[in-house]
This record gives sequence, C-alpha cells and structure tokens, in this order.
Amino acid sequence: MLRRYFPILEWGAAYNREILTADMLAAVIVTIMLIPQSLAYALLAGLPPVVGLYASILPLVAYAIFGTSRTLAVGPVAVVSLMTASAAGAVAAQGTAEYLEAAITLAALSGVMLAVLGFLRLGFLANLLSHPVIAGFITASGILIATSQLRHLLGISGGGENWPEMLGNLFANLPDTNWPTVVVGGFATAFLFWVRKGFAPLLEKFGMTKKGAGMAAKAGPVIAVVLTILAVLAFDLGTRGVALVGAVPQGLPPFAVPSTDMGLIAQLFVPALLISIIGFVESVSVAQTLAAKRRQRITPDQELVGLGASNIASALSGGYPVTGGFARSVVNFDAGAQTPAAGAYTAGGIALASLFLTPLLFNLPIATLAATIIVAVLSLVDLKTPGQLWRYSKGDFAAHMATIIATLLAGVEMGVIAGVLLGLLLYLWRASRPHAAVVGRVPETEHFRNVERHKVLTLPHLLSIRIDESLTYLNARWLEEYVLERVAERPELRHVILMCSAVNAIDATGLESLEAINHRLADGGIGLHLSEVKGPVMDRLNGTHFLEELNGRVFLSQDQAWSELAADDGEIAPTDHMLARGLI
Amino acid sequence: MLRRYFPILEWGAAYNREILTADMLAAVIVTIMLIPQSLAYALLAGLPPVVGLYASILPLVAYAIFGTSRTLAVGPVAVVSLMTASAAGAVAAQGTAEYLEAAITLAALSGVMLAVLGFLRLGFLANLLSHPVIAGFITASGILIATSQLRHLLGISGGGENWPEMLGNLFANLPDTNWPTVVVGGFATAFLFWVRKGFAPLLEKFGMTKKGAGMAAKAGPVIAVVLTILAVLAFDLGTRGVALVGAVPQGLPPFAVPSTDMGLIAQLFVPALLISIIGFVESVSVAQTLAAKRRQRITPDQELVGLGASNIASALSGGYPVTGGFARSVVNFDAGAQTPAAGAYTAGGIALASLFLTPLLFNLPIATLAATIIVAVLSLVDLKTPGQLWRYSKGDFAAHMATIIATLLAGVEMGVIAGVLLGLLLYLWRASRPHAAVVGRVPETEHFRNVERHKVLTLPHLLSIRIDESLTYLNARWLEEYVLERVAERPELRHVILMCSAVNAIDATGLESLEAINHRLADGGIGLHLSEVKGPVMDRLNGTHFLEELNGRVFLSQDQAWSELAADDGEIAPTDHMLARGLI
Repeated sequence: MLRRYFPILEWGAAYNREILTADMLAAVIVTIMLIPQSLAYALLAGLPPVVGLYASILPLVAYAIFGTSRTLAVGPVAVVSLMTASAAGAVAAQGTAEYLEAAITLAALSGVMLAVLGFLRLGFLANLLSHPVIAGFITASGILIATSQLRHLLGISGGGENWPEMLGNLFANLPDTNWPTVVVGGFATAFLFWVRKGFAPLLEKFGMTKKGAGMAAKAGPVIAVVLTILAVLAFDLGTRGVALVGAVPQGLPPFAVPSTDMGLIAQLFVPALLISIIGFVESVSVAQTLAAKRRQRITPDQELVGLGASNIASALSGGYPVTGGFARSVVNFDAGAQTPAAGAYTAGGIALASLFLTPLLFNLPIATLAATIIVAVLSLVDLKTPGQLWRYSKGDFAAHMATIIATLLAGVEMGVIAGVLLGLLLYLWRASRPHAAVVGRVPETEHFRNVERHKVLTLPHLLSIRIDESLTYLNARWLEEYVLERVAERPELRHVILMCSAVNAIDATGLESLEAINHRLADGGIGLHLSEVKGPVMDRLNGTHFLEELNGRVFLSQDQAWSELAADDGEIAPTDHMLARGLI
Repeated sequence: MLRRYFPILEWGAAYNREILTADMLAAVIVTIMLIPQSLAYALLAGLPPVVGLYASILPLVAYAIFGTSRTLAVGPVAVVSLMTASAAGAVAAQGTAEYLEAAITLAALSGVMLAVLGFLRLGFLANLLSHPVIAGFITASGILIATSQLRHLLGISGGGENWPEMLGNLFANLPDTNWPTVVVGGFATAFLFWVRKGFAPLLEKFGMTKKGAGMAAKAGPVIAVVLTILAVLAFDLGTRGVALVGAVPQGLPPFAVPSTDMGLIAQLFVPALLISIIGFVESVSVAQTLAAKRRQRITPDQELVGLGASNIASALSGGYPVTGGFARSVVNFDAGAQTPAAGAYTAGGIALASLFLTPLLFNLPIATLAATIIVAVLSLVDLKTPGQLWRYSKGDFAAHMATIIATLLAGVEMGVIAGVLLGLLLYLWRASRPHAAVVGRVPETEHFRNVERHKVLTLPHLLSIRIDESLTYLNARWLEEYVLERVAERPELRHVILMCSAVNAIDATGLESLEAINHRLADGGIGLHLSEVKGPVMDRLNGTHFLEELNGRVFLSQDQAWSELAADDGEIAPTDHMLARGLI
C-alpha cells in the first residue's frame, strides 16, 4: 500500500554507487539542456524567465518521490506553457502580479486535480483524448507557439490568443522591426537548426562516439545562449534595441501561496482541468514509451499522483504548471538515468544555476530564447498525419482537422474541447448503430453467416439475427428498430432468433429493449429466442423477469435453435425437404 | 422524398368514410379528456389556463401533417409543463407578460431545435437518455409535480424550484390553510382516485361493455369539473376563499410572435434543448409502443420534424411546449383512431370549447385542476424500478438514483444533466476497460477458450489473447497496458497472438496502439501476430503502414496461428528464424 503511493521506497531500497554514478551523469546533461529551455518556456508562458527555473526544481524532487517512471523528466513544456499563457491572460495582463498569481494558482489547481483523479483512479478520463485529437492539438499548438515567438525574432510587440490575432498583430507591427534583433534571432535560429542536423556528424568526424556526439548536440541551446550573450557584450546590442532578459532575481525559489479567491479559482477551473489532462496524456505517453524500452512498467493512476505532487510543489515554490516533457525525458533516458533520483540531482543543478548563474543571463537576448522555442516546437508540427487519417478513417480525420482548426482560430482551450466533443459525438453516433446481420446456415455445416455476404440457407418463418455488439442504452433503440423493421418485411415469420455470441453485456436499457421486442413480437404472434448467450450475460438475465416473460427459449447454440425451430413451421415447406437432405 | 417529410400524403390518399367515422369518435373522447387536462397542465406550467387550450389546437393539426405515428396525441404534458415552469420562472415572475413570452419562446426554440435535429437525422442523441435516467427523472418529476400542487389543495401560496424549497414553503404557509378549499380539493382527489378504480366496474354492472365503461371512466376529470363548479355555485365558495379559475378569454388562439431578444434566447437555450429531448423521448416511446401493436412503423427522425412543427405551431398560436402524451395517446388508440386526422378533429373540438365553453369555467376551483394533476402524475412515480435495477446492475442503479436525487434537490434541469453525465461517465468507464482473455487450446480441438475458465493447453513461449471488443480510442490505452502487462509476466515469451474474432472495428487510435504494441514487443524480441481478423477490418488495415511494420503475421484462424508458431520455440532469435522460414 505504502509502496503504491511512494514508489521511491521500491527503487530507493536497491540504490547503490553504480546507479548513483549513472544518475549523476544523466542529471548533468539534462541540467545543461534544461536551463535555456526553462527560461524560454517561461517566456512563452508570459512569465519572468526565473519562474521557469523555479518550476524546474521542487517539481522534479516531488516527482522523484511519487512518480512511477524511472526516466521521465518533468518541468515546463511548450504546450502547457502556451495553455498557461492563454488561461492567465484571460484574468490579468502579462507582467502584473495578478498574472503571476494566476499562473501559480493554475499549478496548484492542476496539481490538486491530478492528485484527486489519481486517488479516484479516474485516469481513464484521459482516454477521451483520442490520438487524432491529440495529434491535431499538438500540431496546432506548435504552429501557434512558433507564430507567437516570431515577434521576438523581429523585436516588435504583438501577442494574441489565436492565429488570426497573432498574424494580425505581427503584420501591423512589422514596420517597427528592429534589425539588430533580426540578426541575433536569425543567427540563433540558423545555428540551432544546424546543431540539430550537422553538429553531431561534425563531432563524430572529430573522433567522438555517435552517442557522445548526439549528447553534446543537446547542448546546442546553451552554446547559442553563450554566443549571443557574447555578441550582446561585444557589439553593445542592448543600446541598439535588442530586448534582453535583464535582471533575474538570484537565489532559491521563494515560498509562494496560491490564491484562495474563489472567483479566480472558478475562472481558472476549466483551463486547469484541460492543462491537467493534456499534461497527463503527454507525460504518460512518454513514460510508457520509455518504460517499454527497458521492459519496465508505469502505473497511470499513480502517475497522476506523481504529476499532481509535482504541480503542487511548483505552485508552492513560485512556479507554474509542469509535466513530463518528451525531449528532455529522451535525453535523460539516453544519458543512462536509472532512477527518478536523476531528476532530483537535476533539480540540484538547476538550483545551483538559479543561485549563481542568473547574473550572467542579464545580457541574454530574448530573441535567442524565442529561437530555442521555435526550433523545438516546429518538430511538433506533423503534416503527415492528416493524409494518413483521411485514408484510414474519415471520422478520425474530421476530429483531427476540427481540433486543428478550432485551436488555430479559437485558441487552445476551445481547440481541446471541440476535439473531445466531436470525437465523443462520432463515437456515440457509431455506438448507436452497431453492426448486426441477418444470418443463415452454411449448407452442410453448423456455421451461420451473413446472408448478404455468403450463400446460406434461410427459412421464411425463421429469422436469425446476429448482434455484433453489447446491448447498451446507446444502441437499445437501434436494436428495437432493427429487429422490428426486419420483422415487418416478413409476413410469414413465426420465430426470431437473436444470436448473442458477440454480446458481452446487456445493460438495463438493453434489457428493457429486449422486453419491448419480446412484447411486440408476442403481440404479432411471433416467438423470440436467444442463442449462444455468454455465461456472465446469462447469469445476469437469470435474475430478471425477462426470461420468465420470454415468448420463446434460450438455446445453447444457434445450430440447436435452428434445428428445433425449423420444424415448427405449421405446414410442410422447404424445411422438410431440407431435413430429408440432412441439411438441418 | 415529399412523402418522407409529409406523411399525410401517404395516409391521406387512402382516407375514406369508414376511417372518418372511427377518427371522429376517437376525437370526441380525446377532446373530453383533454379539456380539463389542458387547463390543469397550463396551471402546472404557471400559465393562464387558456394557454393550455391554445397549446391543444394548432399543434395537433401540425402533427397530423408531419407526424408519422397514426395514433399519437400531442398537447401539453405534465413533465414538460413542469420544465416550462422551471425555465420560464428563471427569467420572469409567474403572471407577468414576460413569463408568458418566455413560455412561447421556449416552444418556438424547442420547435426549431426538434426540426433541425430531425433534418440532420440526429435523433440518436436521444439515446444519451438511458432507461434508468428517464425512469428516475419521471419518478422525481412526478413527486415534484404532486408536491407543487398540494398548495392548491390547501388554498395556500407556495412554490419553489426543488423539493426542499417546495416543502419548506408548504409548511411555512400551512397555518393559512383554507378549509373550504380542502373540502373541494379533497372531494375532487378522492373522486378521481375512485373513478380510476371503481367507476368502470360500476358502469359494467349497469350493463355497459368493458371497453365502453373504460372509455367513460376517462371522462372522470370532466365530471369532477362539473361537480365542483356546481358546488361553488351552490355554496358560494368563491366568497369563502376558494380560488377559482376566473375569467378565461373567449375565442380562438391569437397569433403570437416569439421573442427575438438574443439575451432571452441564450438564457432559454439549454432548457429548450432539455425540453426538446425529454419531450421527444417520451413521445417516441409512446408512438413506438402503439405502432407495434398494429404492426405499424414510425420514423424517429421524421417524428422530430413532426414534434418540431407542433411546437412551432404552438408558439405561433400563443401556446407553450407540447409533446406526445402517454395517457391521451392510449385513449386515442383504444377509442379506435385510425389516422392522425383524429388529432385534427380533436383540435376542432378544443377550438369549439375555447370559443363557447370558457365562460362556464369561471367558477371552476383551482383545487379541482390540482387534484386532476396529482391523480395523473402519481402513476408516474415508480417505486419498483430502483430494486430491479439494484439487482440487475449497480451502475444503472447509481445513474437512476443520482437522477432522482439531483432532480428532487436541484430541479428538473440539473436532474437530467446529472443523469446523462453520470450515465455517460459509467459507459465510458466500462468502454475503457473491455473484456479480453488469455486463451489456450481446448485439447484435441480447434477451439480456444479462456485459460481462467477452462482446462486448456498453453505454451510458455506463445501467448494468445482474445479481445472481445472493437479497438477504439476509449480502450486503446487499456489494450497497451493489458498486453504489455501479460508480456512482462512471461520471460520466456517469443510470440503474442491477438485473436480478433470479436473486433468489429479499429479506429485510428486503436491502430496507433497496435503499432505501439508492435514496436515495444519488437524491442523485446517478441513477434506480434493477429488471427481471425474480420473482412472489413482487414480491408482497412491493408492500406496502412502497420501491416508492413508488423513484426509477425496475420493468420486466418487462431488454430493455424497456434500450429505454426508452436513449433517456433528454438534458440535462434525469432526474427531471423522467421525470416529464414519465410514466415514474414
């Protein structure tokens, strides 16, 4: 029990010097990668850069205690930062104390929600986000994020909640472009793109191993930071209109108290829920992928608790919503992290940075951070998925495109909600018209197949319907209509057999529909029979009036039902002929 | 096409004198029943009694043109009247012109919504109301309605949106009880209960046929109306504090225009949607039940159009939301109505009543109408269902009780919403963890059965999993967890076979999960195979990368998969070995 809620007790017991070394090494690499990322994502969230550092310290320690993934690296991530900007921007202006308070409160709310969902084992709610919806949301978020950062590369003001607003502001302010900023931002962007593609091969040429070169390339953003700071100092770019990070408070994270203003909490409730679910889905996918590579397991419901603890820790230390990030977790994994302790050591590294390195960041151009973000998020934009979905499933394609369009035009919150609702609507629509088939006997066998696909025997007084779905309230009305329509077409009908081999469950509404069908058929002098009812379904039916009132029988097999009822046709007909031929 | 939208063209073509006679007779009986009911339900909706008459004229004519049921009788009904009172009461005080305007606008909105749902063929949305939710809602509404009318039996003021409020007001005003009203109300209630049970047998004793006596008993409310009016006149009860209907405007319905105030429409949008869906569900159940008795069919999507037209007609003639009522439709059916023309003739009867009878209603005690309502709605309260549901399905029981409790404590709108959401949540929870089983071969057969239920053969290097559900985004994550957990338990594993005999569809998220499972198994040197994939599912898979990347094969039958893979337990790494054998 205790181990379920504190996974640290499990891996902590086996901790040794060897694991320590591996974890420490991974922590150093992740720390170097995380410093510029934390600053950049805070900028994306509309917060002071130091808040990004705060969000990368205590949350990592909390996750090390409560998380079940051995290699997940939590902290600020791009999509959640954008969602934070959107939610906090709705209640206060960027740069105000209220804005920061809203971000902190979002982290607290999201933390509590995640933990509650975890304790109640409601992780399945994340299933509401289908793959096409998530993919669409991530693509659209990538586009929104990249667009939102363009202004920093141009040194102009801007902003906006959605794509048309952002582009409008961008074009309106284009005349104010600051050319020194364009040069710095252009250089940083080009350098970071080059580092992605060309840096590792170059290092390999100089004799580094492939893996070592790949690791070193992750330091690209740090190199860009150093180079552009040097450029600012060398050419005195600060006086030429290049926006700089400026004074960053030195020291450990402060103790922060989230707001208890119920009005604010009510306003932030839905955004916090969306941030929680998006963050959870992103995090759990990464964690599962990495765990499977080492044949480890994660526990999704406990992951909720782990992420909840991380976000509460973030809120209490002046940070904003965090989750498990893809890029940094892969780096952590590749660098050989063995346990979540690597995360705690990374936290130590970031704490040292916020104690000692922040004065060095004074001359860091904002454009460098924007370039870091743009290069990182453009890989989120996935142009192949729409075509694949179109070919595979039109419904999934519709949900994907609706999510992209709604996110671009109406912002991140409406985008997620639209995608989830459309996905659910399509699912319910399909669930309300499941597959069923009129079946007949395959000659000289005990098999029954769809009359529309196979050459099978049927009898005018006997109708066999195979239902390929559980009977639930969503399809109960459909079942009544389907059966009664088939019956209305056949004036000679005497018996209906429902073949229930694929019926895994019948809920109360489904039972009600069976009763209604039974009564209506009985009114018309037709018997209703069931065949191949599964054990657990039969156990339930045994306790009900339905079986008592059933104007027919329950047969173990469809073959037996057919054989016995085929004879009951009142008059001589094909049946006898077929009986004589041994067909039935 | 034209016949689809105008069912009148179909039955109208075959209309003759015989049908006319039957329809006229039914219309007379329904008219007599409908007059006191219309007045009473208008009272329940908080509207002037005459509005109930208006809502029983043009809507019936509209339904006769557009409706597909031959015997459904539309007009004001109890539950929808209560919902109207709740919705209109939220925007204006009873008795004001704004309140009446809100009720008319509700009818217009509801009519447009129903018609739009019908044209878009979205009738399946009514499936979201499961039987337990509807039953709970109807029971709770019956209790609320009866409680709301008690004050009229006591001659006191009161009101309230929910049960605690109603009871609180009732007890607070109890000292104001008007005893003459109690006598009149008590007499009317007792008389109406007696009519239900004892009147028909009495008439039979006097030589009437059973059917005739049953019909005559439906005139009970009219007799109660006449008797209490006479009592008011005889004992001058109006001066003794007995509340009377008073002056009712004489004449045909006025032409009314629904409000176009967008603020009002926005406020009434959700209530109108709920009224539409509840009304549609009630109406379509009645219509289907009656149609089946005569082996007729109704078309639910066209029913939406018919009810939509009725509500628009109601709004344009100063009425409020209407729908098909259970009791009056049964009377119409039993009285021998053959076509919807009976409804049009009923409309004529009500029109005559509103032209000539309204002055006679001046001295009608409100308490008589209240007694009519109470006796009618107490039959809605269903005390058997909770026990049945508890025994059959705990989830359905929970949805039922939640709906009852939410309706009683928070009113009709919250009740429906809570029931639908809880039902959906339970459904999604179940859908997210479908049934699957590890299967083994039944010795000396080609059959495969659940290892936990049957004595079957298994092999340590071969894992067969039967999935009993379509793979959708709701259960995709579950599938990954289920398979990977089973795999993690078995270190000797070389092959996994997914037996897909019950998989009717795989959506894009399900496919993504299969791909993820394939990659993760491949990372661990395990092959993934599919067996018994259905034709339509295979057709879709054929167009995807999944089959190309599959680290295994697709087998026609589980038996074949088992036979071929059982042999492959050698030491050579599976992939190479299988390549060598031409298996992949």
